[in-house]
Amino acid sequence: MIELIAIGDEVLYGYTVNHNASFLAQALLEKGYACTQHRVVGDDPEKLKKVLEDALKRNACVITTGGLGPTCDDWTRKVVCELYGISLHEPEGLREKLIAFFGKNFSSIEDQVLVPEGAYLFENRLGTASGFSLTQDGATLIALPGVPQEMKAMFAAEVLPYLESIVKLPKKRHFEVVHLFHLKESDVDGTLREIEKKYPNVLCGIYPGYSTVTVHFSAEGQTQELGFAKEYLISKHGQYVCSKPLAEEVHSLLIEKKITLATAESCTGGSLAASFVARPDASAYYQGSVVAYSNQMKEQLLQVDPIVLAHFGAVSKEVTLQMAEHVRTLMNTDCGIAVSGVFGPSAGTSHKPVGTVCMTIVLKNRPPKSQTFHFVGNRSSINERTIQAIKVELLFLLRQIP
Amino acid sequence: MIELIAIGDEVLYGYTVNHNASFLAQALLEKGYACTQHRVVGDDPEKLKKVLEDALKRNACVITTGGLGPTCDDWTRKVVCELYGISLHEPEGLREKLIAFFGKNFSSIEDQVLVPEGAYLFENRLGTASGFSLTQDGATLIALPGVPQEMKAMFAAEVLPYLESIVKLPKKRHFEVVHLFHLKESDVDGTLREIEKKYPNVLCGIYPGYSTVTVHFSAEGQTQELGFAKEYLISKHGQYVCSKPLAEEVHSLLIEKKITLATAESCTGGSLAASFVARPDASAYYQGSVVAYSNQMKEQLLQVDPIVLAHFGAVSKEVTLQMAEHVRTLMNTDCGIAVSGVFGPSAGTSHKPVGTVCMTIVLKNRPPKSQTFHFVGNRSSINERTIQAIKVELLFLLRQIP
Repeated sequence: MIELIAIGDEVLYGYTVNHNASFLAQALLEKGYACTQHRVVGDDPEKLKKVLEDALKRNACVITTGGLGPTCDDWTRKVVCELYGISLHEPEGLREKLIAFFGKNFSSIEDQVLVPEGAYLFENRLGTASGFSLTQDGATLIALPGVPQEMKAMFAAEVLPYLESIVKLPKKRHFEVVHLFHLKESDVDGTLREIEKKYPNVLCGIYPGYSTVTVHFSAEGQTQELGFAKEYLISKHGQYVCSKPLAEEVHSLLIEKKITLATAESCTGGSLAASFVARPDASAYYQGSVVAYSNQMKEQLLQVDPIVLAHFGAVSKEVTLQMAEHVRTLMNTDCGIAVSGVFGPSAGTSHKPVGTVCMTIVLKNRPPKSQTFHFVGNRSSINERTIQAIKVELLFLLRQIP
Repeated sequence: MIELIAIGDEVLYGYTVNHNASFLAQALLEKGYACTQHRVVGDDPEKLKKVLEDALKRNACVITTGGLGPTCDDWTRKVVCELYGISLHEPEGLREKLIAFFGKNFSSIEDQVLVPEGAYLFENRLGTASGFSLTQDGATLIALPGVPQEMKAMFAAEVLPYLESIVKLPKKRHFEVVHLFHLKESDVDGTLREIEKKYPNVLCGIYPGYSTVTVHFSAEGQTQELGFAKEYLISKHGQYVCSKPLAEEVHSLLIEKKITLATAESCTGGSLAASFVARPDASAYYQGSVVAYSNQMKEQLLQVDPIVLAHFGAVSKEVTLQMAEHVRTLMNTDCGIAVSGVFGPSAGTSHKPVGTVCMTIVLKNRPPKSQTFHFVGNRSSINERTIQAIKVELLFLLRQIP
């Protein structure tokens, strides 16, 4: 029904990741619009014209991102004009709006006041490139800026309502989503195969993450089978079901159960703290973190016993226990979490290879919980796995609190 | 020349971002292979077959990612067999290899030993899905697993050498990249327009980031004009040129100039620390961070004067100065950086709206450098802008050190 086309050499050559497509695909799906395809094409007017023509033939709607700027490699407006046999013109009031936002002397104004004639305009409140839409022969083209925050703001405020008024859904697609933690894809696959046999109108999708699996059921109008499918999955794996994605579930439980939190980090270098603080309301429970990257800082800031450090090594449950206990005392919180590991690529040993990670969670009135993980991957994926694994352990503990 | 096709509803519906495409596009470009297009298609065998057929007609090589797993929504192998009129078979030795890696009883072995007959195989050292390649009528299809780390490891170890042996480049495309900091796209655009007139065989690409702009020049064999284009850009904006991307340049300078570093963070919540620690050699200079998310922690851990805190507020140069000075003393480093800001979405005031960020860098034997920024965006983009802006300021300071 809807095809997404990202335009730009920076995306085509891999310097920019196409986050715009995933944002748009999700936002559209929430409204019942399923994407048929995404494409990325370069700053090449001939190629772009062909791809647009092809996409408009096959879809009720085509949404492009990028190529609306004033620079030498921005082609979208010119190509769209060629395609529709129209010209660029300056719509009434646009110059005044741009001057009001960006001042009189911004260099690209003569370029940025021009849009394809007859197009419906979307206002850009964060940048100079207007979005626009044209409908012909039952197909709607929507052109949006490539800068993610400009595109997102424009999409939410103006594009989505416009789209809903112009592209009618023949049959709404319904969705049910189940979040599971502590499971792998293969733990759930058997259940999904049973569900596909039992409920043939339900489509299953399984999306593995680190320490999590998300299952999507969808159907065209078959809402009852959808509910049955979800119930069956929950009946099989109920204890590992979250009502939200893992990080959100942990965040909500910390707030709900009024558990304050402090962290002490070595290998994760602040990213464990950042994973909590990424949510606005984290200030309700999150106090702070001590990132003790060097051993000296572990001794000095977290009072790790030098003898324990020398004997067991920085990557040990003994050391993370001391770190967690001290940071909990230091920041006077209910819960302290500490992590230390070998993220590599070097510094691994045969005894503690790259991917070895120790962590301890100290929760008041409970015995401390320590764990050693062995992860595979590069530095950044081991880091992500570590954060997710810690949240799984934390979730188990939080669920035990009445 | 090469088209990339990501297969999977999780990508099509936006739950997974297509990082595989950007990785592959960059890795291919480094070897002189330019991508013509990326596509994302869902777990739909009919659609997949059509897209593969179309892509193989237009390109010397098509690389797919995803759909090779054992679960109900994995179609790639079956569709490829239909397309080439071949069957799945069990190649000699694959079962033994899989058992050696994953043990005898892994549930999907009967599925994962099967690959299209006659295909050239790529070994998966991190997962159960083998990659494979088929060449027919001058077009090569390469099918890789969708799990990023499996795909990346396989690509580097086996796929790239194989590709270079089978897909010969007609004319190698040459590239020159210039990294600029502290500039916006519009600061550089005029220069690029001049360059495009002077050197018509050179293609320019401009990729804006937060506080940075990256310029790519490329040409088919025209290496001399490429060099001239780069020189001309440097002659115009030389003082803002880095030899590497901003974060890498700062990292290298800290090592080269032997400057040790500690950070004190409020709003960034550990992500400033994490941005340094993301690089393996950070232990050469990075000591640690105090993430003092609450005001109480700012007073307690960073000795911020309660009177200063009450009078100027947590988001003030006065407070970040005290934080930076204290963390530098606490960790005994050459440099201390502190940051405090309003990341929103709530908590902004008319005096200090969302996006107001204060930071101070204290470098030994120099006057402290404080700055207030006003950023636009959501929580996560303000966070990224903050980290980039801090690195720009740090780069200016580091360059002054003899």
